[in-house]
Amino acid sequence: MKETLSVRILGAEEGAFVDRKVDRAYAHDGTGTQTLAAYQNFITKNAGVKSPEKISIIYDHIAPANNSTTANLQGRLRSFSKEENFSFYDVGSGICHQIMSEGICLPNEIVVGADSHSCTLGALGAFATGVGATDMAGIWATGQTWFRVPKSIGIHLDGKLSGHAEAKDVALTYVRNLGMDGATYKSLEFIGEGATAMPMDARLTLCNMAIETGAKTGMFYADQLTKTYLKNYGVEEKKISLQKPEDCDYEKEIYLDLERVEPLLAVNNRVDTAVPVTRYAGTQVDQILVGTCTNGRYEDLQRFANIVRGKQVAVRTLIVPASKEVYSRAAASGIITDLVNSGCVICPPGCGPCLGVHMGVLGEGELGLSTANRNFKNRMGVGAEYYLCSPSTAAASALTGEITSPDVLSKGRLK
Amino acid sequence: MKETLSVRILGAEEGAFVDRKVDRAYAHDGTGTQTLAAYQNFITKNAGVKSPEKISIIYDHIAPANNSTTANLQGRLRSFSKEENFSFYDVGSGICHQIMSEGICLPNEIVVGADSHSCTLGALGAFATGVGATDMAGIWATGQTWFRVPKSIGIHLDGKLSGHAEAKDVALTYVRNLGMDGATYKSLEFIGEGATAMPMDARLTLCNMAIETGAKTGMFYADQLTKTYLKNYGVEEKKISLQKPEDCDYEKEIYLDLERVEPLLAVNNRVDTAVPVTRYAGTQVDQILVGTCTNGRYEDLQRFANIVRGKQVAVRTLIVPASKEVYSRAAASGIITDLVNSGCVICPPGCGPCLGVHMGVLGEGELGLSTANRNFKNRMGVGAEYYLCSPSTAAASALTGEITSPDVLSKGRLK
Repeated sequence: MKETLSVRILGAEEGAFVDRKVDRAYAHDGTGTQTLAAYQNFITKNAGVKSPEKISIIYDHIAPANNSTTANLQGRLRSFSKEENFSFYDVGSGICHQIMSEGICLPNEIVVGADSHSCTLGALGAFATGVGATDMAGIWATGQTWFRVPKSIGIHLDGKLSGHAEAKDVALTYVRNLGMDGATYKSLEFIGEGATAMPMDARLTLCNMAIETGAKTGMFYADQLTKTYLKNYGVEEKKISLQKPEDCDYEKEIYLDLERVEPLLAVNNRVDTAVPVTRYAGTQVDQILVGTCTNGRYEDLQRFANIVRGKQVAVRTLIVPASKEVYSRAAASGIITDLVNSGCVICPPGCGPCLGVHMGVLGEGELGLSTANRNFKNRMGVGAEYYLCSPSTAAASALTGEITSPDVLSKGRLK
Repeated sequence: MKETLSVRILGAEEGAFVDRKVDRAYAHDGTGTQTLAAYQNFITKNAGVKSPEKISIIYDHIAPANNSTTANLQGRLRSFSKEENFSFYDVGSGICHQIMSEGICLPNEIVVGADSHSCTLGALGAFATGVGATDMAGIWATGQTWFRVPKSIGIHLDGKLSGHAEAKDVALTYVRNLGMDGATYKSLEFIGEGATAMPMDARLTLCNMAIETGAKTGMFYADQLTKTYLKNYGVEEKKISLQKPEDCDYEKEIYLDLERVEPLLAVNNRVDTAVPVTRYAGTQVDQILVGTCTNGRYEDLQRFANIVRGKQVAVRTLIVPASKEVYSRAAASGIITDLVNSGCVICPPGCGPCLGVHMGVLGEGELGLSTANRNFKNRMGVGAEYYLCSPSTAAASALTGEITSPDVLSKGRLK
């Protein structure tokens, strides 16, 4: 039996269909209200919620509410969550995946979230994947769901990142290499010395974008760094299992030399189109977004701030910390003050304009740069276009108002 | 001739109709887009903009944009403003009245804003009033508009505020005394020792609510305090005229003993219903809003923070700094960090949910407390109710999750 992480955690061979109890199940205000509707309409009324202690509801998509309809839907789910003793995180707490990564989700757990980017949590050595709202309703009622154990692709990371290249650029690279349907229903395992050396924020960014290749999840082996990270969030040491990589016989293996990764953009409404930032240098930008479950962590804001600090942004720039915890750290360390003084607009923790339904939708004909994970047509505004990039590329471009590579900026080659 | 401030600044007798050049004309994203439509549809095409240096556009109502329609309207006005060399303040700059109060509007000026709360700026000794979007379009084309010189009501403030009573409670008191149509088309002049002693944030709060009595504007005489305030914003001393109160023969005079003002709530969907906070003590609250052109200034956030610092709020609490300047000061002084750590949600500068179209709309059956100026039926959410109060009352209530007088809280009489 191939000892991939997915095989070990799900406890069955690749391709096997298994029913498994889940360790964590979470939904946000968008899918949560759909889950509630499915639960109340389709589940036997007497069933009740099976394991409320495993269930979280996190308001991040339209938070705070933008109109009466949203407010009413959120009100109903809020009441239900409190009645059922769910862990409830109200508006301003942060993005669901980020909240779950802050000392809640643990290695070896089976985690389901009613959002496609739930694969983010594979960074902690969990088997974490997205489910639909009706699946989630079933999980509320039974505490379990079914999985087909995925085959795995090994992504070897070698060498070290140089210049201003960062995890987001690595993510855009592997998505380009695999293609947007190149890993459908597979698990991506990030391995090799370059993976071991990745800090947790980078691991979360890399796993976050696994779904953009069609993958079921992305995973890192839980190691000493995972342990230190979780202990910092107050997790008891005995609860944190380490995972030793076996010599896996992966279905496919790809090799990335981190040294050769450069700042990239995903363009043309596809995530797998990464091109060097320099190729679009000088293109005027209308709005810049820094945040989301891909790149809204403290380290992301820090990288952005290190470039813009003491200068003025030349374009509308929205900063959305991924959680209250991120916001608090950034405020205490002076980053928030620096960013406000540089002319950035700080939005409350949540998904912000990433999905085009709140705070910062683009207008027709506008071009945005975003640190998010999807650049699908019309997603951030009907008739608008936007490119995906790293926080450092966002920062360099914010200062000039046009697409600018952070490597070029730091070399002083700009006007 | 009665030498009221309005008479002096408009230069004509009470009741006279006059055409006057305006010194400042501003609009926000809501009325600005309407003004643009009126300007482009009804004004002779060759007219052109008369005095662009006097015109400001400030995005505060739905900022950042909540959907594609808003984004497109904002995009058009943004382009037009830049083409016409208007002073343009993009999303995140702050509330229009607050921006104009930060070293732009000066004593003796005639100021028009396309928003009813433009009367706020009377706090600086200007004649400041709201106009409709079509009037504003005419002002763009001609640089002037007509006024009927209002009769004035003198509001004598005597004594000193005690306990946690503050300017907002004084405002709710005079609105109750006059009634919601008790001063239609009049100018309110705040005079007496109690007025002279009021700091600028309090003067702005008092003038802000003049419109809630139907008044054309509310005014303070520009004095040494006004001069110091404006100099702190970099205004040259020679541009700041002082105004000496004459012995005016007001149409009506009312006297308020500040000593007797207590923390108040405006209830029942009317602004003139102020009742002591203690009368509603213990009523559960669903959301608290601190901000708006009435009470979103640094001093307001400071008062709020002084009560909640080091504790946790028990209810959804939204803080919306009135401007980037306010946000920056609150971030630098640690207030933002304290509020985030207390569980508050910090929204970007702007009007927030005050008018029920953005970030923080209430759901059906919910009760909110708001530091804003209007509690009209359904305004902050269809089927929701909310009461108006001061930042200190908001703070005490945030800590308990139920309506709580800050005076009672500080006396430790709470459970």
